Amino acid sequence: MKIAIAQLNFHIGNFEGNLQQMLRSVEEAKTKKADLICFSELSTCGYPPRDFLEFDDFIKLAEATVQKLADVAHGIAIVVGSPSRNPVPEGKDLYNSAFFLADGTIQHVQHKALLPTYDVFDEYRYFEPASEFQVVEYQGKRIALTVCEDIWNIGNENPLYTICPLDELQHQQPDFILNLSASPFSYIQANQRTQIVQANVKRYQIPMFYVNHVGAQTELIFDGGSLVASPSGEIFDELPYFEECLRVYDLDEVKKGGRQHLQTRNKMQLIHDGLLSGIRDYFNKLGFKKAILGLSGGIDSAVTAVLAARALGSENVHVLLMPSQFSSDHSVDDARKLAENMGLSYDIIPIKNIYDSFLDTLAPKFEGLPFNITEENLQARARGVLLMAFSNKFGNILLNTSNKSEMAVGYGTLYGDMCGGLSVIGDVYKSEVFELARYINKDGEVIPENTITKPPSAELRPNQKDSDSLPDYDILDEILFHYIEKREDPNDIIGMGYDEKLVHRILRLVNINEFKRYQTAPVLRVSPKAFGMGRRMPIVGKYLS
Amino acid sequence: MKIAIAQLNFHIGNFEGNLQQMLRSVEEAKTKKADLICFSELSTCGYPPRDFLEFDDFIKLAEATVQKLADVAHGIAIVVGSPSRNPVPEGKDLYNSAFFLADGTIQHVQHKALLPTYDVFDEYRYFEPASEFQVVEYQGKRIALTVCEDIWNIGNENPLYTICPLDELQHQQPDFILNLSASPFSYIQANQRTQIVQANVKRYQIPMFYVNHVGAQTELIFDGGSLVASPSGEIFDELPYFEECLRVYDLDEVKKGGRQHLQTRNKMQLIHDGLLSGIRDYFNKLGFKKAILGLSGGIDSAVTAVLAARALGSENVHVLLMPSQFSSDHSVDDARKLAENMGLSYDIIPIKNIYDSFLDTLAPKFEGLPFNITEENLQARARGVLLMAFSNKFGNILLNTSNKSEMAVGYGTLYGDMCGGLSVIGDVYKSEVFELARYINKDGEVIPENTITKPPSAELRPNQKDSDSLPDYDILDEILFHYIEKREDPNDIIGMGYDEKLVHRILRLVNINEFKRYQTAPVLRVSPKAFGMGRRMPIVGKYLS
Repeated sequence: MKIAIAQLNFHIGNFEGNLQQMLRSVEEAKTKKADLICFSELSTCGYPPRDFLEFDDFIKLAEATVQKLADVAHGIAIVVGSPSRNPVPEGKDLYNSAFFLADGTIQHVQHKALLPTYDVFDEYRYFEPASEFQVVEYQGKRIALTVCEDIWNIGNENPLYTICPLDELQHQQPDFILNLSASPFSYIQANQRTQIVQANVKRYQIPMFYVNHVGAQTELIFDGGSLVASPSGEIFDELPYFEECLRVYDLDEVKKGGRQHLQTRNKMQLIHDGLLSGIRDYFNKLGFKKAILGLSGGIDSAVTAVLAARALGSENVHVLLMPSQFSSDHSVDDARKLAENMGLSYDIIPIKNIYDSFLDTLAPKFEGLPFNITEENLQARARGVLLMAFSNKFGNILLNTSNKSEMAVGYGTLYGDMCGGLSVIGDVYKSEVFELARYINKDGEVIPENTITKPPSAELRPNQKDSDSLPDYDILDEILFHYIEKREDPNDIIGMGYDEKLVHRILRLVNINEFKRYQTAPVLRVSPKAFGMGRRMPIVGKYLS
Repeated sequence: MKIAIAQLNFHIGNFEGNLQQMLRSVEEAKTKKADLICFSELSTCGYPPRDFLEFDDFIKLAEATVQKLADVAHGIAIVVGSPSRNPVPEGKDLYNSAFFLADGTIQHVQHKALLPTYDVFDEYRYFEPASEFQVVEYQGKRIALTVCEDIWNIGNENPLYTICPLDELQHQQPDFILNLSASPFSYIQANQRTQIVQANVKRYQIPMFYVNHVGAQTELIFDGGSLVASPSGEIFDELPYFEECLRVYDLDEVKKGGRQHLQTRNKMQLIHDGLLSGIRDYFNKLGFKKAILGLSGGIDSAVTAVLAARALGSENVHVLLMPSQFSSDHSVDDARKLAENMGLSYDIIPIKNIYDSFLDTLAPKFEGLPFNITEENLQARARGVLLMAFSNKFGNILLNTSNKSEMAVGYGTLYGDMCGGLSVIGDVYKSEVFELARYINKDGEVIPENTITKPPSAELRPNQKDSDSLPDYDILDEILFHYIEKREDPNDIIGMGYDEKLVHRILRLVNINEFKRYQTAPVLRVSPKAFGMGRRMPIVGKYLS
């Protein structure tokens, strides 16, 4: 038997577009003599469809898409993920299902049993878990259909769940496993995915074909990296990251094994390529082409600009250099040099007159009061308004340039430098931004060396440095990592040797700045715990604050 | 037996504050000869604690709070809601539990079985559902403990669930039911709550004491309205809305019934009082006192200003009047009149110089391009920056004045009039804002009549009217209600007689403006379906758009 796996970039709610992509893949698979083609989880409607699932019309469109695929399932079997209706009134209205289509009809439907409801996942909000498991027979082979998380509870050792779908299916002696996934990217995901697939094939001693979604849906990036695993535990093949791909495998050869093909995994390369995918799909799927951002001469906007230019093409990225009286000479020079290195069009727009007009207008009300954060924020907001004016006038989407460290502690101006439709590096700590800059420069200077080596500064008052207000980024980022990614307690973090006062101060800053993050653009997720839908914190809470 | 119910305003994560409130209530209940006192759901940690629940330290603090309450449970039993740990590795780590404390110890723990995971609720993200049900005996009475949603599946007729906790507990012949709730307010909630409590007591023929949380936690308002119901189905008592209250009841008298006490429920009064509670607690719980907002002379900012002044005191609300060359004369007059009616301090700050400085600065880049939405947004953003400057300089929290209709269709400027820490009327449709203004004026003119009767206008270009871009608000709001609250399909809405093109245009506007709402302040929830955490839509989706 020849099995095709199609790692495609679907678009949420774009049923016609998704269908056309799948029809093309079915044709390609037929040309390549495949007996079966498998797509990823919820491929009819895209993943995650979120509350669109509450619209009956949306489900009808998904059902119609499945039917149209069934209509062409002649000479080839098609396995496709789609929501399906729960026929009984008890429980949630829908299942998250794998449809097996052959001979022009729906031959079998296997629902997902393990419904992730943590971090960015809300599946129990919509879906009823499967309680029945049945292999499907096709061309003399018995196939175990599983959907994403279903393979993540090996031998019931994942404490989140009390059922193991493959243990149930195993009794029916399947010949191989298909897994339809939509497993979001983080820089550790490819390793985790490989381990779980290997553990499964070793346990059940049959091949597995793991088909992942690729491309980005707003903040969630899907890296692809679909896997074919032999019963021995070898990874027979791994599909590329961040690009669509269709490949066909001979089941007997996969069964035989003796081949290991894994791509190298470099954290900065994964983050870099993941962010390009995230930017590209945000624009493509919203129907925009052009980006704008402010270039300060600092490292955050420099890295963001390079990523945007690589994702969208230099000709589609315009940058504004908006110096104030507090900007150092090197800021404009460094920014201009970057724009020239990348071939970006740019405008230099000093903000002095605008800033002065705000000060003049406010002078009668602010008389006698000292310069403080108000005036700093005024500069950041004047820049935000200018960027949005360009965005409105020329149709460029504004990219946000905040990093994860400053988003964590609230070191940014709401409606100022926190403006933008998409936060590109909001899940990248400042110390990782430096690494990313070095990675970008690995084959020659793209980001000016001075941008990387000079001390970070917001340049909103004379001689300001980030280190005036914040601890050293290496220490800050470590403490943030323990608190945000690891969800460790303050006392545990202090127990690791960090200064007690500093830990309390940082955790307090994180918690009291929830209100700022609430109003931030969606953040491209590259870590196991990003700000946004995967981290849900009270604003008026009084915990560690 | 005398039973006290304590409807209190807890603060998420403020364990010490919550404990002290409960200790005071225990003392008061003792003074009033109560044998038992019952608090609301998750009263140790406040509701909803959201991802704070993922911190071990947070759970420890909740456990310690329960223990401190157990220590004082002498001569009185205490029933308190708190998270508890799942002792086995399978399933989620926590339960959402009711603790029965007496004689200085924890006598019994009943976990919640029905975990709402829809709209604003994420309980399955954190909690394992109960599978065991046991009444607790105290002073010769058998008590059925239930937590919130547990009573919302009467006779298994709620299609969301497959278990009915009280059907299980009924076999053990309980004498009465305690229900610990944290049931968020909407203008239909008091009616729904009453119906469900009545249906329960009629089914089981025993009294019920339903204790609700009161006060607001960011966007979620809890209205209190705790209920005591007789087996006959009569509501023996209903506690007040939007205020703390402790009352003591004689079980035999409740059992006997013959008394019906329900408060009148007027939609506008409920919304009005709910919003005051929402504003007040946002400020109180964040430790702020003073608000600022822009007063345009229009109805949205007028209503918001009145609500803010009533919630915080007129002396704590400052307003800015920021006319431009497009403002009509009456705008400043109407705004000034409102400020004077309410005794609000105000400043008049024309934005002309700032607007001109933006235009001058941008002129070389925008040369030859016509006035468009860019220049309209510039005015709104200049105002946003001025308001934020006041906010930063004087420590006033900026209140957002957008209504639900304009938030729905994206008729607002991001980082302009969409600025603010809290959206006060973002869950109130424009047509309801008019009703609310009339309600506010019911005892005499507070909001100037002209503000209510003049045609709505953003005044961002000459002679602009909302009706230039939007359909009549009555029609718009009806269509929005069907789509947002009812989640009805476009064809169903068209089938009701609305113009087909108009329906498609409006639904498309709703969907393509998801990116704006993503960056909006938390919206005080007064309807059954508000923008924010209870409505989760893809940004890059391509559905009806």
